[in-house]
Amino acid sequence: MASFPTTRTTTPKQKPADDALAFGRVLTDHMFLMDYTDGEGWHSPRILPHGPLSLDPATTVLHYGQAIFDGLKAFRGADGQIRLFRADRHAQRFNRSAKLMCMPELPVDVIRQSFDALVGLDADWVPRKPGTSLYLRPTIIATDVMLGVHPSHSYLYFLILSPVGSYYREGVKPVRILATDSHVRAVKGGTGEAKTAANYAQSLAGQRDAEAAGYTQVLYLDGVHRKYLDEVGTMNIMVKIGDEVITPPLAGTILDGVTRASALELMRDWGLKVTERPITIDEVMQAGRDGSLQEMWGTGTAAVVSPVGTLGYQGEDVTINGGQTGALTQKLYDAITAIQYGRSNDPHGWTSVVPEVRG
Amino acid sequence: MASFPTTRTTTPKQKPADDALAFGRVLTDHMFLMDYTDGEGWHSPRILPHGPLSLDPATTVLHYGQAIFDGLKAFRGADGQIRLFRADRHAQRFNRSAKLMCMPELPVDVIRQSFDALVGLDADWVPRKPGTSLYLRPTIIATDVMLGVHPSHSYLYFLILSPVGSYYREGVKPVRILATDSHVRAVKGGTGEAKTAANYAQSLAGQRDAEAAGYTQVLYLDGVHRKYLDEVGTMNIMVKIGDEVITPPLAGTILDGVTRASALELMRDWGLKVTERPITIDEVMQAGRDGSLQEMWGTGTAAVVSPVGTLGYQGEDVTINGGQTGALTQKLYDAITAIQYGRSNDPHGWTSVVPEVRG
Repeated sequence: MASFPTTRTTTPKQKPADDALAFGRVLTDHMFLMDYTDGEGWHSPRILPHGPLSLDPATTVLHYGQAIFDGLKAFRGADGQIRLFRADRHAQRFNRSAKLMCMPELPVDVIRQSFDALVGLDADWVPRKPGTSLYLRPTIIATDVMLGVHPSHSYLYFLILSPVGSYYREGVKPVRILATDSHVRAVKGGTGEAKTAANYAQSLAGQRDAEAAGYTQVLYLDGVHRKYLDEVGTMNIMVKIGDEVITPPLAGTILDGVTRASALELMRDWGLKVTERPITIDEVMQAGRDGSLQEMWGTGTAAVVSPVGTLGYQGEDVTINGGQTGALTQKLYDAITAIQYGRSNDPHGWTSVVPEVRG
Repeated sequence: MASFPTTRTTTPKQKPADDALAFGRVLTDHMFLMDYTDGEGWHSPRILPHGPLSLDPATTVLHYGQAIFDGLKAFRGADGQIRLFRADRHAQRFNRSAKLMCMPELPVDVIRQSFDALVGLDADWVPRKPGTSLYLRPTIIATDVMLGVHPSHSYLYFLILSPVGSYYREGVKPVRILATDSHVRAVKGGTGEAKTAANYAQSLAGQRDAEAAGYTQVLYLDGVHRKYLDEVGTMNIMVKIGDEVITPPLAGTILDGVTRASALELMRDWGLKVTERPITIDEVMQAGRDGSLQEMWGTGTAAVVSPVGTLGYQGEDVTINGGQTGALTQKLYDAITAIQYGRSNDPHGWTSVVPEVRG
């Protein structure tokens, strides 16, 4: 395994109890940093105690949002081993985001090495309670100090870690989702398929309005026709109508979700009819009314699979599967988490064991 | 004038020669900071030596781009006095951006006081050569340290200053603009009318492609029909076809430019026919071909008024006014800069004199 210059913390933090974990509130003891400079490329990888970055207020990321990130998880198996879920695919998507945002890509093996090195060092931070995990947040930010709008000539890659419980307070209980016709997350020709700050900034007002109306999350519709399902902002969306599972295609406005891809692959393994095609909110609402909308769920690294119990649109709510988690939704959750925690076979080779670093 | 706790620099920087000024590369000696905390509101205004901020890598602005800014200028008049141009309007727009991005507004008088206090303290940084000015960049960034997507509960307001020359290397010479049909800056329902990081992040790829094709800037078309003019990303756009000046309306996707508003008001003062209406790229290109497109220019604080000499679209270039700065474009530039530098009357009360702070 690659080894990086490492400065260990002299003041390790107290770890929260597994029961007390929320999402992303606690950071571990260390972070991984690496710099990019035009001409020199990526250089100076290093592990330091987790601590503040020193950024001039004229740093371009603070003004022009040239930033990308990804999010993946490390799981503590019943066998005690730590497994990353689809680390290569996350690393590849990270690079795709970089390219879309005019940022320099990183060699995939260096990204992977940063994952292994930092998780290995902070291995004691990987929680043990079922449902918990260690969240990895690789990020690149533009670091030029200059007020003109331009793709930066210098960047910082950092990787930080956070032990997490469930993303939603409700756990895997069904959530209430509002399809909005007033807020747009992304449009073709924009940045919707990149995991970049802009998409999340755009989602804040819609999320606020949905919460004020009593919903948990927003279902965004396409920005052109305002009728095709896009995604939920933190999750991709899937519906089961009759015996067919339908999910919006990767057409430039939604994120190429790793959990989305994994769920599709599993369902195809299981012989289900799975279709990636544009689907309108009217079709989904109608299926909700006539009962053919059997299940609906979101997929994402944070929540894994999140059943939708209620879908709201233009003042109407439809209840899905009696507001209960559907059988397929539950089967997907169980199958994916069984692979993540090493409780089942991993026929597609999605997990990789992280060697722990002994101090 | 309001007075704020001030720590003066003990190591003043060397000021660049007025001739050497570019846009936004040099920051002055001091910065203004103020914090926001839920429950407590805005507090702790202070002036410190310009220096780095200390930000945890999990700070939400670095991941979710919840950031707004504005940009205005202070001008050194021939009489030696320093004048801000339309500071109130900039402060109001700053608050509108805050609201759109789910961020707390600031009292306009506090924003104004921060402008006056910091420019007054760094008054020696206001350059003297015609065409130069001191650029003010008020900014708010989300400062929660937490990896879940949410509107932050804490914020930092900062104001930084930069002595500037011309925004474009070409100065007021006509620029080459490419109308893009592959990149979209903003769409209705998104953040296009806010001065927020997301819009600039979205513009980087289009700008890169335009430069690669030999153009200076990108003209963005609307995200729905891909045919109506939106804006240039750093400027609003105006065309003169026959005896009519036409500019896209404020309909939620473009910035409510202060220079745009000023130019419209001046042209109406002058009795010109000025229309704010949707206008298609086809109409503009056709007017370019038949010669009725007499002038085209961008407006923005950085460049003031920037003539468009060439407009490219789908492989075709039209030359406007023989590639020369048009009479109205020049008249607007002269009229606005005369007010800014105190060389002419200021009938609308757009400027305000900044009292210099004597140390």
